[in-house]
Amino acid sequence: MSAIEELSRELAKLPGIGRKTATRLTYFLLKQPPDTVNRLAAAIKAVSTLVRPCSRCGNLSESDPCPICQDPRRDQELVCVVEEASDIGAIERTGEYRGLYHVLGGHLSPLDGIGPDDLRIEGLQTRVGNGSQVREVILATNPSMEGEVTATYVRGVLADTGVQVTRIALGLPVGGDLEYADGVTVAQALAARREMSS
Amino acid sequence: MSAIEELSRELAKLPGIGRKTATRLTYFLLKQPPDTVNRLAAAIKAVSTLVRPCSRCGNLSESDPCPICQDPRRDQELVCVVEEASDIGAIERTGEYRGLYHVLGGHLSPLDGIGPDDLRIEGLQTRVGNGSQVREVILATNPSMEGEVTATYVRGVLADTGVQVTRIALGLPVGGDLEYADGVTVAQALAARREMSS
Repeated sequence: MSAIEELSRELAKLPGIGRKTATRLTYFLLKQPPDTVNRLAAAIKAVSTLVRPCSRCGNLSESDPCPICQDPRRDQELVCVVEEASDIGAIERTGEYRGLYHVLGGHLSPLDGIGPDDLRIEGLQTRVGNGSQVREVILATNPSMEGEVTATYVRGVLADTGVQVTRIALGLPVGGDLEYADGVTVAQALAARREMSS
Repeated sequence: MSAIEELSRELAKLPGIGRKTATRLTYFLLKQPPDTVNRLAAAIKAVSTLVRPCSRCGNLSESDPCPICQDPRRDQELVCVVEEASDIGAIERTGEYRGLYHVLGGHLSPLDGIGPDDLRIEGLQTRVGNGSQVREVILATNPSMEGEVTATYVRGVLADTGVQVTRIALGLPVGGDLEYADGVTVAQALAARREMSS
């Protein structure tokens, strides 16, 4: 296989990029100065070698604990639970949240064989359990069916801990994806969070 | 800047990829095994270091002359003129063409300051001129206004050479882009090519 075909094939493996887009991107890169192209290749290599999940919250960063867990100015009594590390950006961009995070690593999905043991739920229990500072857990899983089911499950698991558990408000369009919501909507959904009965 | 932000920024420079898609691709790559990610980075680096334009026809490949120019089974009497190296793939995929190519490297566009000297037109004259084997030149520039103007200009330049000059048929949708046309349309346009008067 030629270098051109090889790159087109690798690019076509990315989500939302078909064969034609992959070819177009390949020829675009062929027209760029080597510096530009090498910077892209280096950036791709760098994320795969430098970025690791935070052992405490699961956020992806180049340090462990991640910058958010290390920041003493963050409210240590508040933990926001999200499905993916990429969801943290959507909440940080609102500038309205000053607590910590916990990344589950997905949502419950029996059809895909994803059960509670495949998510970082035990780690959350430990963080929230006896002797912890945590006062409130905000469940900010996606406003989809799987996200709701996951929120309900996590709510049940935390019932014994006595911590306050809230659910992010469904100001987000139902069926949507937290990562791509606009900041105002995310901020509103955070502000209107409601107590979740167990 | 973090490695994640750096990669998102580099990806967002690609055509058709906005900030949100760049973020989505970055997090997709973060979830892949290092092998997959390194293969993509290596493929990107490889095209920029290995691939060069053919000194004869301008096709992009890892050898010079390119595999098409080196192939003795190709019809040496037929030269198909295209705007970009990426257009060659569209014609090769039809399996209907067995001649050689000549890549202009773009089209005439006075508004963008692209004149005849910016295209590989002189190289075409040399290939087609005195003592060459070439019997017919097929002008397969895009069916756009710029492509038509470029074809007319090249036709004029080749008038003195006595070679037969044909224009790919406008079976392609006018205003479209050769690179993305389907194989049947491209094949039909090649078959219905017509003599171009000087």
